[in-house]
Amino acid sequence: MRTYRIAAVPGDGIGQETVPAAVRVLDALAGLHGFRLEWTMHPWGCAYLARTGTMMPADGLESLAGADAILLGAVGAPGVPDHESLWGLLIPIRRHFDQFVSLRPVRSLAGVEGPLRDGRPFDLVVVRENTEGEYSEIGGRLYRGRPQEMAVQEAVFTRLGVERVARYAFELAAKRSGRVASATKSNGIVHTMPFWDEILSEVAADYPDVELTPYHVDALAAHLVLDPARFDVIVASNLFGDILSDLTAALAGSIGIAPCGNIDPSRQHPSMFEPIHGSAPDIAGTGTANPIGQIWSSSLMLDHLGEREAAARLTAAIGEVVRSGSLTPDLGGSLSTAQVCDALISAL
Amino acid sequence: MRTYRIAAVPGDGIGQETVPAAVRVLDALAGLHGFRLEWTMHPWGCAYLARTGTMMPADGLESLAGADAILLGAVGAPGVPDHESLWGLLIPIRRHFDQFVSLRPVRSLAGVEGPLRDGRPFDLVVVRENTEGEYSEIGGRLYRGRPQEMAVQEAVFTRLGVERVARYAFELAAKRSGRVASATKSNGIVHTMPFWDEILSEVAADYPDVELTPYHVDALAAHLVLDPARFDVIVASNLFGDILSDLTAALAGSIGIAPCGNIDPSRQHPSMFEPIHGSAPDIAGTGTANPIGQIWSSSLMLDHLGEREAAARLTAAIGEVVRSGSLTPDLGGSLSTAQVCDALISAL
Ligand SMILES: CC(C)[C@H](C(=O)O)[C@@H](O)C(=O)O
Ligand SMILES: CC(C)[C@H](C(=O)O)[C@@H](O)C(=O)O
Repeated sequence: MRTYRIAAVPGDGIGQETVPAAVRVLDALAGLHGFRLEWTMHPWGCAYLARTGTMMPADGLESLAGADAILLGAVGAPGVPDHESLWGLLIPIRRHFDQFVSLRPVRSLAGVEGPLRDGRPFDLVVVRENTEGEYSEIGGRLYRGRPQEMAVQEAVFTRLGVERVARYAFELAAKRSGRVASATKSNGIVHTMPFWDEILSEVAADYPDVELTPYHVDALAAHLVLDPARFDVIVASNLFGDILSDLTAALAGSIGIAPCGNIDPSRQHPSMFEPIHGSAPDIAGTGTANPIGQIWSSSLMLDHLGEREAAARLTAAIGEVVRSGSLTPDLGGSLSTAQVCDALISAL
Repeated sequence: MRTYRIAAVPGDGIGQETVPAAVRVLDALAGLHGFRLEWTMHPWGCAYLARTGTMMPADGLESLAGADAILLGAVGAPGVPDHESLWGLLIPIRRHFDQFVSLRPVRSLAGVEGPLRDGRPFDLVVVRENTEGEYSEIGGRLYRGRPQEMAVQEAVFTRLGVERVARYAFELAAKRSGRVASATKSNGIVHTMPFWDEILSEVAADYPDVELTPYHVDALAAHLVLDPARFDVIVASNLFGDILSDLTAALAGSIGIAPCGNIDPSRQHPSMFEPIHGSAPDIAGTGTANPIGQIWSSSLMLDHLGEREAAARLTAAIGEVVRSGSLTPDLGGSLSTAQVCDALISAL
């Protein structure tokens, strides 16, 4: 039987609830499609930090390396600074395994009311660079505590880094609408962003059937709130992709349902799948966390593993369950996490 | 008679139409309030560049220095790279005159339909840092054209720079709702953004009656599209302020009406007022440009010059004219630029 080794890292807060929920649904689905998921649970995160002093063990990355994929819940807890929590777990995984594409599909779902009045349905994908750019560790402070104090941070864009994410976006667009929107800000960020634009144009030349349109990120944000349905594939730097994917997820009605794949398209390393929402400490433990973001991410994982049919079936089930109003409180429903999973399993 | 020397720089595209429109309306208003505006017109911009090789003369900044304020139209033309046009005119003025606050009020106006379904009216101000941060000239390229090519760009945040814009935001909030939202991204941009957060907290300690709430910029963008009415004063870095002000202007229904003041609160230098929209080359010359952004910016200018009553009267007239449906085509109306000005003048 086809077997996939999945390393699960529930992490913090509601991750402790959404990952087990996903495991339940995925196991049911695997049964229907004749494959098996072999789960390894890694109890890392802020509680682990409190016990041991680090977010994961020293050989943590190594112990993930043999997995076919990683399913992550959420990272972060009140009182733990982000540079300890996120930079001790999430970011090292993204970087160590060269998961250079952050794939963030955003789709309006019937049953989830978005904030836009003329909410034409939309279905777009943010392809975010995930290993370099503005999220760089290069930088620091001078004159700490003095009036002349300053902090600097170097954004680093490499030809390799931009070209590979651009190519991914064009390949994806070629299979979809044939349109790529690129987020730039070359009129304000005058060194790195013109470089980004140049490489995007070079890559575009290899895809004569795909149309590239660059937008300054400020204008792009404005266009998105006026009419997200204009857009299909949006390629963006690490920071811009972060902002635009939260923005578009909110336009779809909720950041509680949007999925994310941190992907190494070369398949030399395991890719990691996680919802874009956070650990939501305020509702953790109440059994009401929305599992859809986690489960939609799991569907991206199945697709990445080559289980296309199962992935499509899961996405369809999500659409059906949401449409039928089987929702957690954050979406205006009254179901528990477990009840949404029940609904999903029967929809499968 | 109180006289103010205004340096007008219409610039490119529709700036050639909106600045003369503002002059007409402001002169009428000045007559009603017993002051005089002494205009100097500076024919700088992309046409000037084509004739002379530079966007403004070598002594351009010097010749603005004696003005009480600067009214700018728009900068940029097709075929002229932004680093020539904007960095040859707009950005040097912001920096030379230490206009460290970019003040961007955004208000929903009755008569302009925004994209949000539950469009509760909102009235917020983005206070954007305007002289440092991510818009830095420090950076460059290595290995041009080679596979190992890279571009770097240094974001520079100084205590002086962050503290002064933070103080401005807190002063403003103290006169408004008593709430400041700060845009950060300290979980991803790990050197400069934690520094931003620290200084914001320090400044907050001096304003016990003002409440500071930091938001990661991705989450803030999401909150804004879900309910902009939650927010009052938003303080943000140069880049984040740029994105958030376009985003909120779009939520108000149009980036064609939003104003901007580039302000030196120390008043050692002239401040500059400009609409946030661009030069719109596609409609330039048709006489249909929306003059509201320019004229609302002029009202910020009058306020800055101390003509509070006239400024308030002008803002009220804008609200009235828009409510009555006297609109240019971009807002769904059929009036010309000149007809909107006529309507404004009679509303005054
Ligand atoms: C034209 C560009 C450089 C400018 C900026 O980003 O500052 C514009 O977008 C603005 O907001 O004034
Ligand atoms: C938590 C944070 C570091 C992270 C990011 O900005 O990458 C998150 O916002 C995301 O989008 O995955």
